[in-house]
Amino acid sequence: MKDVYILGGAQTDFVRNWKKEGKNVIALLKEVTDDALKNTNITKTKIKELNTKNKIAIFIGNFAAEYYINQGHLGPLLTEVNPCFYGVPSARYEAACASGSVALDAAITKIKSGDYDLAIVIGWELMKTVDSKVGGDFLGRAAIYEKEGKGVEFPFPKLFGRLAEETVKKYNLDQERYLKNLATISNINYRNGKRNPNAQTREWFMSEKQANTRGVETNELVGGLLAISDCSQVTDGAACVVLSSEDYIKEEKLDSKDYPIIKGWGHRDAPYLFDNKIAESKDNKYILPWTRQTVEDCYQRANMTVDDIDFFETHDCFTSSEYMAISAFGITEPGKEYEAVENGTIDFNGSKPINPSGGLIGCGHPVGASGVRMMLDLYKQVTNKAGEYQIKNARNGMMLNLGGSASTNYCFIVGMKLWKK
Amino acid sequence: MKDVYILGGAQTDFVRNWKKEGKNVIALLKEVTDDALKNTNITKTKIKELNTKNKIAIFIGNFAAEYYINQGHLGPLLTEVNPCFYGVPSARYEAACASGSVALDAAITKIKSGDYDLAIVIGWELMKTVDSKVGGDFLGRAAIYEKEGKGVEFPFPKLFGRLAEETVKKYNLDQERYLKNLATISNINYRNGKRNPNAQTREWFMSEKQANTRGVETNELVGGLLAISDCSQVTDGAACVVLSSEDYIKEEKLDSKDYPIIKGWGHRDAPYLFDNKIAESKDNKYILPWTRQTVEDCYQRANMTVDDIDFFETHDCFTSSEYMAISAFGITEPGKEYEAVENGTIDFNGSKPINPSGGLIGCGHPVGASGVRMMLDLYKQVTNKAGEYQIKNARNGMMLNLGGSASTNYCFIVGMKLWKK
Repeated sequence: MKDVYILGGAQTDFVRNWKKEGKNVIALLKEVTDDALKNTNITKTKIKELNTKNKIAIFIGNFAAEYYINQGHLGPLLTEVNPCFYGVPSARYEAACASGSVALDAAITKIKSGDYDLAIVIGWELMKTVDSKVGGDFLGRAAIYEKEGKGVEFPFPKLFGRLAEETVKKYNLDQERYLKNLATISNINYRNGKRNPNAQTREWFMSEKQANTRGVETNELVGGLLAISDCSQVTDGAACVVLSSEDYIKEEKLDSKDYPIIKGWGHRDAPYLFDNKIAESKDNKYILPWTRQTVEDCYQRANMTVDDIDFFETHDCFTSSEYMAISAFGITEPGKEYEAVENGTIDFNGSKPINPSGGLIGCGHPVGASGVRMMLDLYKQVTNKAGEYQIKNARNGMMLNLGGSASTNYCFIVGMKLWKK
Repeated sequence: MKDVYILGGAQTDFVRNWKKEGKNVIALLKEVTDDALKNTNITKTKIKELNTKNKIAIFIGNFAAEYYINQGHLGPLLTEVNPCFYGVPSARYEAACASGSVALDAAITKIKSGDYDLAIVIGWELMKTVDSKVGGDFLGRAAIYEKEGKGVEFPFPKLFGRLAEETVKKYNLDQERYLKNLATISNINYRNGKRNPNAQTREWFMSEKQANTRGVETNELVGGLLAISDCSQVTDGAACVVLSSEDYIKEEKLDSKDYPIIKGWGHRDAPYLFDNKIAESKDNKYILPWTRQTVEDCYQRANMTVDDIDFFETHDCFTSSEYMAISAFGITEPGKEYEAVENGTIDFNGSKPINPSGGLIGCGHPVGASGVRMMLDLYKQVTNKAGEYQIKNARNGMMLNLGGSASTNYCFIVGMKLWKK
């Protein structure tokens, strides 16, 4: 199989509220696409030329535009952005909050199979079109709605609140200490977000004390043990990455040493109902074994271990999911995640930083965009283009993107070819 | 690239109304999956074995379960059908009425790239959960809703009614003769549907006279020139095909001569707004040039021409789209489609039969299922398993699946390896 390169991309500022700006999805797609093409030196003439040879395609990740903006059939929307996209194959890929990864997976496979030379992958979601309660109900369709979503106020904080409870139970943790760990995780993500010029929360106040004071007016409980500070927030935004084949690199006389490649991938679905997940994992040392399996598949395909990974972007939809990810990545043994939280391992300056971007909690979580945003951040780090949030020695990075209550699991490893094993 | 085989599949009876039966989507998925696995001799043990090696995946085509049954994140649903699907990678693929083809495309690419050995592709839609006006509004989200759908009663009959009007205008056709041609197309599909034991309309009355008497109580006008008889109808249903790699064929000691392969594919997106489509095609001899381009790409990849294709399954969402497809396939020159309608070329016993299954008008059109249903029918014909609707000398078949007003276009050629050029 041929290598798949990441040429670059773009992300919108996750602070923005597109409805308040009076801008629609076409404006969103135009901004992110124009920026990504500019950053990758791809002209509209080049797009037309590639399209004449049927060598370019578009992959859209989105969860629920049907609900938020009354729109389905999202593939052809780019034809409204610019006529250079007339004729370019395009489709939409969906797995709730992992929708961006489904689009990435399809695009990567198309390029490595030789079908296309250039893939424009865009993840996006406009969520600020409705109030948070209505939006919470929409998000309930990422669980089995009839059983886990319908009539439940904010179903997902409750599901990940259950993950918190089950984690405490499974590993016999001290609940106070566990909640303090979650507060540390929250605070790291907020702190990291302050370095990221596109982060939603970069001007927000958060402290470890605030994150650890739950059940008060400024930090209400939203799902079992979890409070507002444990949650990612409603976000509008889009992220775009441009992938290419080796043939494109050669034809355009680019230097393959300047661009990272996809080194590994993993994709697994777990039992849909949260109860079934917990029942299945009863005798497994991992609380979410299929999430761990996704990571293992990814390491195996890349011929790597956790020792080869310099940083992580993970799906901290809630602090309880990042806590779970620590052992899923192999940073600690399952049940010992607290070590990596307490000893600074996952800090920005730690040995295994998680979410230098701020993650979903700090950077923001426009649902369908997050997988692509993570991939873009892996690209930025390994090419030393992350600016204020650049970590040191970022050779290989791993991302973990979850859909629903980890019903869909996706993992990718990105790094410069130089560091390929 | 490796060959991709079709092992078989299954379709639900498109007469059925699952809501009236009190059955939900899990029941639908269970029936079609159980039937498909039985037809392809794949046991649940085999699925688990393949999954241990991470060599099996599921691809779901669906347009709008969000609207019809309040459910998104459709990939993991099969874990509710049977625990043998725990851990199996799965995702949902969407391009309105071409959703099934997006799922097929992703599955085919995964197999030819060597990522998986077995792919279960399921297209489905439950549409009878709401009345036809509400459903018509849902379907408006397959167009740009704000411009072409919102506040319009039955937007799609109107859009394809406009295709009818533009066709008459572009080729200076006699309108009465054109409408008679559409009635012939309708009647062929209904007649073909009567031979298909899974067709929605197999017990319905239709005659050429009825189809050509528009604007009366029994055949009301629904979109410009088009009447009820020109439309596919609201349908519940699912279709499944099982694809495999050559490695699977060898490991299972199957005879590769018994199974057809995917010989070609095409995928193009056209300008989203219907007005933009017509404006762009003004100086082109084809009224929908990107639909034609999709067919041409498919022929080119298969190294075939129309002469090599023995039958077609096309997207007759409306009779005007099948009329357009005749020249897109290359059966006639554009503007001369009436010849193939009037001289019997596209009849069941003609030299280039279209829709021996009955197509969307005769067999039914559960939106997300149709692409997969077409692929299943190509499989049945080329393996001589189409029973009462088997056509003669079915060596190679082509399918054309459209999304929206042909904003998404997908084409595949299926045939036995023996007949590979």
